[in-house]
Amino acid sequence: MEKLSSLFLFFELAGTFAFAISGATAAKQRGLDVFGICAIAFTVACGGGIIRDVCIGAVPPAGLSVWYYLVTSLLASAVTISMYSWVKRIDHPVILFDALGLSFFAVTGADKAYVYTANVEAAILLGTTTAVGGGVLRDVLLNRVPIILKREIYASAALLGSSIVVIGSYFSVLPISYLFLLALIICFLLRIFSLRYHWNLPVPLAGDQKKKTEE
Amino acid sequence: MEKLSSLFLFFELAGTFAFAISGATAAKQRGLDVFGICAIAFTVACGGGIIRDVCIGAVPPAGLSVWYYLVTSLLASAVTISMYSWVKRIDHPVILFDALGLSFFAVTGADKAYVYTANVEAAILLGTTTAVGGGVLRDVLLNRVPIILKREIYASAALLGSSIVVIGSYFSVLPISYLFLLALIICFLLRIFSLRYHWNLPVPLAGDQKKKTEE
Amino acid sequence: MEKLSSLFLFFELAGTFAFAISGATAAKQRGLDVFGICAIAFTVACGGGIIRDVCIGAVPPAGLSVWYYLVTSLLASAVTISMYSWVKRIDHPVILFDALGLSFFAVTGADKAYVYTANVEAAILLGTTTAVGGGVLRDVLLNRVPIILKREIYASAALLGSSIVVIGSYFSVLPISYLFLLALIICFLLRIFSLRYHWNLPVPLAGDQKKKTEE
Repeated sequence: MEKLSSLFLFFELAGTFAFAISGATAAKQRGLDVFGICAIAFTVACGGGIIRDVCIGAVPPAGLSVWYYLVTSLLASAVTISMYSWVKRIDHPVILFDALGLSFFAVTGADKAYVYTANVEAAILLGTTTAVGGGVLRDVLLNRVPIILKREIYASAALLGSSIVVIGSYFSVLPISYLFLLALIICFLLRIFSLRYHWNLPVPLAGDQKKKTEE
Repeated sequence: MEKLSSLFLFFELAGTFAFAISGATAAKQRGLDVFGICAIAFTVACGGGIIRDVCIGAVPPAGLSVWYYLVTSLLASAVTISMYSWVKRIDHPVILFDALGLSFFAVTGADKAYVYTANVEAAILLGTTTAVGGGVLRDVLLNRVPIILKREIYASAALLGSSIVVIGSYFSVLPISYLFLLALIICFLLRIFSLRYHWNLPVPLAGDQKKKTEE
Repeated sequence: MEKLSSLFLFFELAGTFAFAISGATAAKQRGLDVFGICAIAFTVACGGGIIRDVCIGAVPPAGLSVWYYLVTSLLASAVTISMYSWVKRIDHPVILFDALGLSFFAVTGADKAYVYTANVEAAILLGTTTAVGGGVLRDVLLNRVPIILKREIYASAALLGSSIVVIGSYFSVLPISYLFLLALIICFLLRIFSLRYHWNLPVPLAGDQKKKTEE
């Protein structure tokens, strides 16, 4: 059991680090200053969890009050700023860690939301939000349509992971640690396979030929 | 009384459906995938109410925990995806339902906020937010300036509806059901007439001839 | 002491007014209608405080329930709409008031968050959010990358002011009024000097020559 919680802490920090790297990298590419890079890195790492905590009444949100999220985000920002060419080379591990973070945040987020609200639907939706909310905020702040709405099996993997935990808890099919591991593994593999084999959700063809462009 | 609550449930579902249709349509035109379309549809339908509930401390927000909002949104998404040419033909009923949803959410949102906060100002502002917040989130996610800030009597109709309910409740001028109906009708008619006769709020002329364009 | 609280009320109203002016001006330049201008002005003035209050569980948020924030914002909108050429001439006082608002909101926001959460990190982050959150929301709604992420010592001055209040309170180094004044003055001077002498935070050079442009 103790081994499991060390493992979980490793997942959490690795996921936070990967999320923050993705934020810092995007912010750097947009030409933000040092403060902006750190702010976006922190937003990606903690934004989803903060939205969840506000929605379940767990205030102040853990993302704002647990020091190691902030420190991990700042560390990731420092690494991105000072070793950018190296960060670009570790593309592959970052994608792996990002998938780990996605799975981990979906699973633990859904569990926390279920404990607080005892509502299956809210817990599944907020578990997914925990995993993808930070990335959505990053894209909104960087002024682009959130990537998760456009392609790839990303949010849908988180949705599946959250659902397994919450529905499994509801029917008490397995002890919670096994449920966690099961949901983690399924979400992680779905994400990795979808990247590897370029699985995408279908994009419905627009009825009109040309996409309308809005101002 | 029972008839009234059936009527209210119809308003609520029709409004949710129309809001979700507007979200799904906009998302489809932007080329989002199936997940993105469902997410935006749900955001338009429930986003305003979720913001209101978070601001009054009613957690978990009803939009996340009451199943028929989610189901109605998914249904509207499915309809939009599979029967897009038909959805475009039912433009007129959708506009009617949208005005119904606007009025209904403004009125019930203001009432709920007033019950929770007993603060006239917060209740009026949050009633308006309930009605228009989802649309604002849709536009932010789709990376455009929220349409309600630019033209048409839309948010202002919701503001009027919210104000009637809250101020009427404050002075106890009428039983609450009558107040609801009165506010609903006024908000709905104002919205419909403004569409029919192209009423707009004034847009102040910029002092400088050319609009500044920001990056 | 009474003089101090009159002084603080003046700071608060002057800051709210300056923030609202900045929102109304930006909204007018974007061609929004009267409702949009008032909504953006109010968002800039109160948005940061509303986010803070939601994150500490102080509901309904003061920004929504204390009448003089709304009235001050509407007044600033009316002034911007009707006397735009005059508003452009008072550029200098507005920048001074804006720096005053920034400092004041950072200091009082951090103090309120610390009282509610007793968490140093959350209080510092939420104090900064109080000061800059409204401006970030303005830029998101007007569809541009938040200016505070890109240049100038703005958020970092707020961060310093918040930190002084919270860390000072934690170690009880000074009576709270003195701490307030000290943090206010340092934050204000840092902001003003950075404007005067064009201090900026460093912008890391992108490793790749051309900035990637995202859709």
